[in-house]
Amino acid sequence: MVKTFWTLLVGLVLAFGAAAENGYRLWLRYDKIGDAAMLVQYQERIQGYRFFGESPTLQVAKKELEMALAGLLGNLPSGGSNQVIIGKKTDLPQLSGIAISLKTKDLDKEGFAIFTHQENTIITANDDAGVLYGVFHFLRLLQTQQEISNLNILEKPKLDRRILNHWDNLDRTVERGYAGFSIWNWHTLPEYLDPSYTDYARANASIGINGTVLTNVNANALVLRPDYLEKVKVLADLFRPYNIKVYLTARFSAPIELGGLATADPLDPAVQQWWKEKADEIYRLVPDFGGFVVKANSEGQPGPQVYGRSHADGANLLADALAPHGGIVMWRAFVYSAEDATDRHKQAYNEFVPLDGNFRPNVMVQVKNGPIDFQPREPAHPIFGAMPKTPLMMEFQITQEYLGQGTHLVYLAPMWKEVLDFDIDGKGSTVASSLLPTGQASIPQTSSLTGIAGVANIGNDINWTGYHFGQANWYAFGRLAWNSDLSSEKIAEEWLRMTFSNKKTVVETLKTLMLASHETCVNYMTPLGLHHLMATGHHYGPGPWIGDLSRPEWNPTYYHRADEKGVGFDRTATGSNAISQYSPAVQAIFSSRQHCPEKYLLWFHHVGWGEKLASGKTLWEELCRRYYQGATDVADMRRSWQSLKKEVDEQRFQEVDMMLQIQEKEAKWWRDACLTYFQTFSKMEIPEGFEKPAHDLDFYKKLDYPYAPGH
Amino acid sequence: MVKTFWTLLVGLVLAFGAAAENGYRLWLRYDKIGDAAMLVQYQERIQGYRFFGESPTLQVAKKELEMALAGLLGNLPSGGSNQVIIGKKTDLPQLSGIAISLKTKDLDKEGFAIFTHQENTIITANDDAGVLYGVFHFLRLLQTQQEISNLNILEKPKLDRRILNHWDNLDRTVERGYAGFSIWNWHTLPEYLDPSYTDYARANASIGINGTVLTNVNANALVLRPDYLEKVKVLADLFRPYNIKVYLTARFSAPIELGGLATADPLDPAVQQWWKEKADEIYRLVPDFGGFVVKANSEGQPGPQVYGRSHADGANLLADALAPHGGIVMWRAFVYSAEDATDRHKQAYNEFVPLDGNFRPNVMVQVKNGPIDFQPREPAHPIFGAMPKTPLMMEFQITQEYLGQGTHLVYLAPMWKEVLDFDIDGKGSTVASSLLPTGQASIPQTSSLTGIAGVANIGNDINWTGYHFGQANWYAFGRLAWNSDLSSEKIAEEWLRMTFSNKKTVVETLKTLMLASHETCVNYMTPLGLHHLMATGHHYGPGPWIGDLSRPEWNPTYYHRADEKGVGFDRTATGSNAISQYSPAVQAIFSSRQHCPEKYLLWFHHVGWGEKLASGKTLWEELCRRYYQGATDVADMRRSWQSLKKEVDEQRFQEVDMMLQIQEKEAKWWRDACLTYFQTFSKMEIPEGFEKPAHDLDFYKKLDYPYAPGH
Repeated sequence: MVKTFWTLLVGLVLAFGAAAENGYRLWLRYDKIGDAAMLVQYQERIQGYRFFGESPTLQVAKKELEMALAGLLGNLPSGGSNQVIIGKKTDLPQLSGIAISLKTKDLDKEGFAIFTHQENTIITANDDAGVLYGVFHFLRLLQTQQEISNLNILEKPKLDRRILNHWDNLDRTVERGYAGFSIWNWHTLPEYLDPSYTDYARANASIGINGTVLTNVNANALVLRPDYLEKVKVLADLFRPYNIKVYLTARFSAPIELGGLATADPLDPAVQQWWKEKADEIYRLVPDFGGFVVKANSEGQPGPQVYGRSHADGANLLADALAPHGGIVMWRAFVYSAEDATDRHKQAYNEFVPLDGNFRPNVMVQVKNGPIDFQPREPAHPIFGAMPKTPLMMEFQITQEYLGQGTHLVYLAPMWKEVLDFDIDGKGSTVASSLLPTGQASIPQTSSLTGIAGVANIGNDINWTGYHFGQANWYAFGRLAWNSDLSSEKIAEEWLRMTFSNKKTVVETLKTLMLASHETCVNYMTPLGLHHLMATGHHYGPGPWIGDLSRPEWNPTYYHRADEKGVGFDRTATGSNAISQYSPAVQAIFSSRQHCPEKYLLWFHHVGWGEKLASGKTLWEELCRRYYQGATDVADMRRSWQSLKKEVDEQRFQEVDMMLQIQEKEAKWWRDACLTYFQTFSKMEIPEGFEKPAHDLDFYKKLDYPYAPGH
Repeated sequence: MVKTFWTLLVGLVLAFGAAAENGYRLWLRYDKIGDAAMLVQYQERIQGYRFFGESPTLQVAKKELEMALAGLLGNLPSGGSNQVIIGKKTDLPQLSGIAISLKTKDLDKEGFAIFTHQENTIITANDDAGVLYGVFHFLRLLQTQQEISNLNILEKPKLDRRILNHWDNLDRTVERGYAGFSIWNWHTLPEYLDPSYTDYARANASIGINGTVLTNVNANALVLRPDYLEKVKVLADLFRPYNIKVYLTARFSAPIELGGLATADPLDPAVQQWWKEKADEIYRLVPDFGGFVVKANSEGQPGPQVYGRSHADGANLLADALAPHGGIVMWRAFVYSAEDATDRHKQAYNEFVPLDGNFRPNVMVQVKNGPIDFQPREPAHPIFGAMPKTPLMMEFQITQEYLGQGTHLVYLAPMWKEVLDFDIDGKGSTVASSLLPTGQASIPQTSSLTGIAGVANIGNDINWTGYHFGQANWYAFGRLAWNSDLSSEKIAEEWLRMTFSNKKTVVETLKTLMLASHETCVNYMTPLGLHHLMATGHHYGPGPWIGDLSRPEWNPTYYHRADEKGVGFDRTATGSNAISQYSPAVQAIFSSRQHCPEKYLLWFHHVGWGEKLASGKTLWEELCRRYYQGATDVADMRRSWQSLKKEVDEQRFQEVDMMLQIQEKEAKWWRDACLTYFQTFSKMEIPEGFEKPAHDLDFYKKLDYPYAPGH
């Protein structure tokens, strides 16, 4: 034990060296390619490069290409043949005109083509942004060591707005942030431009993210004050070359707090005038300002309902102020009320679906992936597909509020894909397609605005996300926002090759580990459709016993409804009937105790402890089996990681290994705390062959973590 | 303007490269020596090395030496002659025995000798710590490109306890912290050992700091809970090889909050027993635990006076618990009371001096450098020299709470030296000597405990201190704690050579800039003995007009006492007579309107606006002149920095330049806000030749910064 510690200590000293692998570079690592054959092949293929165009975006693209080629190839090529030729279609020389028009006829905005033309490689697009994305794509090919001698690539994003939501407060704390302080140092802006701002923009541009909401949805009106808008302007100027628009959260009561008005009633002309003038002021500073995100009448935030107005009235107020400038409102559907005894699952749908058609054309309704709140697993939100006249925006949570926070390795792409691929109508119309514009969606849509948002997991920790594997979720969100058809596996492989190694054993071992990690987390936290068993407030660790909070729907007991007979929330017609909000085809599956997929079983059904599941085991046995499986699988993850000790640099190897140690401990904690609690209802023994929980229930109940991060 | 921004942007892209100069390495940079002649000379002199001894401390010293030599010399030397021979005296081979005993006869604990012996260089000491310090000293010689062919160095620290105080909270916020979150991630301890913990230990060891108080003096009892003590233990284990002891702050009411007792009365046997058991528990985990720092009965903190007991009763309670294990109590003298109408300047002295002789031998009284609170300039605290039976510990503030916080370049060594060199008795007995043990102090002392504390300026920002030049103050504190005779100039030069460059133009230009920076800050903030003019709470920016706070001594108007006649706090016999707490010789100087140094003038005297000062100018004119001089000098600092554009790496050049832009703006803000305010009393014009303030007083009064950091 002492020796292990000592070895570790000496190992960590390496961190200070010039070549510290601290993770700051993210996946944009341009170290010289180690595979000699591959290097020669690339050097042969890239003997020079020519860049056409001069815009700020093209300049940063050029800078990136030069930095990357100099690194990857060992030095910057400057020869005259076998060139990479980069520029907008309109800027490229006549020479390759025919080829270009053939290869790029379906390019739209932001799309790009990369193709081999005679001895050259062409990267082109209709617009600056497309060129930038094309350059990053080309670099990704090199970083992941793909064949580049006969390229014929055309890519364009499926959704127009691909946005990070930062739940960052003006005091630099981050709600649900597990990677230190906010990267936005408002205090030293606008003069001090931290280099991390630029590197943030580069990282986002490399995966196609084109918008950032700088501030928390639990909003502070202060960010709309002139001095703060000057700070926002500087960030917008910095991000603009990277094709990233800045957005802000708008506190609905800002006209009162900042403007000194007596009301924030959306139908009050003075309020309307205030927002109009505020929007004008913003656009004078930030001509391409993206718009506002609003959380209203939810969890204590002010909103239009204070004045007896609807969400549409509220959204339209802001939309009208932004419309002359081309801005949009992203109005969040995450609402539920302490005064409403309806199953929380149903409330957002009940409030929003009747408003379909009442929103201005520049309003999007931003809907969390599931009907409760970013749980380890949720069925898709029933609003998707149910508001054909309103553009819906998907809201994913990249930061792992409910999925192990800053210390668990949980690769989220499979979870997001599960929702995007969710069959809304039993005929293959997916949630993903419900986000597409008119004409492309498989269910009727009348809107053209499209978008997807991810709640960021970024802080000022040296490695950005607090945990190296947190970077994978940032990466995966961007890639899926660009193209939701990409497989979780492909994304994991790309990220691993760029971030850790192109070696097959590394890629295959870690891909397997990552792809299984979400199911593993579900198993040790909330298997079989259980949800919201987390401790109060900070949501760190298990608290299934909590049932005394003032708002009923904040209590884990509200969700699991365990009693002597069984466990689970009956949301069928015999219960809350939340199931009625889904299409008949989906209802038919979920309402059936037999056909309901086990992963959603206790989400929709109250099931007896002794009832048999598909495995032939009783519910209690199956519950135990899954909790134990989850904990066992984490131990396997760690062993699997340790098998790569020689393949990964010392610093990152140790850091990940220490994190896995935490995850291993906490997976057991989840398992033992939940099972000893549920056992008080089931009155059944932990099945033979499983180690007994380490402590009694009282021990777990007494644990407290007042300073768990992120709340 | 646009172009400048653009250039900056492109420049900042460099940050992401592998060789980013982000400041993380601090002054421990081991890049290959650029001066070819010097490199050859070193390579000649260091053809190999031999390390004797195996202890953890010697292992980290060896690791450091190897990393440094490999870097500085280009590769690790392994030859057999011209060696560096390193080890404790008792471990070194007989061979050089005679030389060693001659050269090292005055070595004490922690001291070291470095000397040339025939063709070899010997680094030796009585103990492991001395060897470690000797290695770092030797590396400093190389880093600063000193001659090493004929060395004859013997160094030992003047003070035994050289300690950083972290005002870090368990939620990772840092009181008066301007460099991001706390580096202590309590949540992921004890499993996750961030590499920065080790690098923190290395940096401290390199400058002789041998203790760290992990937690805020505004204390939280929770850190004494068993689970937190497990985290403390791991940090202590990590720091031990670097000769760094861990200390904690003890919340006086912990027996109530953690122990469930009804009282924290120091004379209550149950309370005594609780602390005894708590100390025993701590030492089981951390056998070399340093002890407690306590802030009691001050600014709302609990303390013995709640129970009618004295500070000595309180300190002795904890001292008795720690004594069996060798721990100490550092009891802070920073006390003042809202109920006490006495000049705040006098209160600590009044409370503590009568207790001299009543403290246990393992208690130190920790005294801030001045009688108010870390102001840009204060006369020395009158307690120094006034408690001969009590070991006094100096408390400096490295973090720049009142000196421009995270964004002003203010090199603090001259300010600290001014206090250390303060003549207590008019006979040359300095504050520095009053900290020395019996027999060495020039004024009588009966104690043997010695120490000095500095409130850290460290956070999780990538460059540790938020600002590259903040690193200089951390460095300078360590160096002065080791040897207060070192000049500010020598320390600045060392730091510059290690951190930026050995080039003469860089060293000379920046040394001049650094050495003048404190006086410059005093000029634009609080010249002529003014103090505590800062805004409320966060202390960011000027607020001289504030006079309505509930506690009188929290108001700037309490300190400057401006009226139509003049400005300044009469602390002579005609006023508060705080001056009576100094020795007669000091009194004689300070009480005289003629002899009182102008730097303390308004600290001790209320002076008429029209009174003539030594310069022949009236007070008003001189006040204006100094404020304008301060602002002008900052502009010069920036020009001076910009002259080095080609000598400093791009990233740090830009970062410092942006900070100087902030300082330039804020220096004018201070000047204009203070002068427009004082003008309402003086009714005099800003003298001819000075630009008029940019705004009227009302403008400055309305500025507010609710999220200024660090409070």
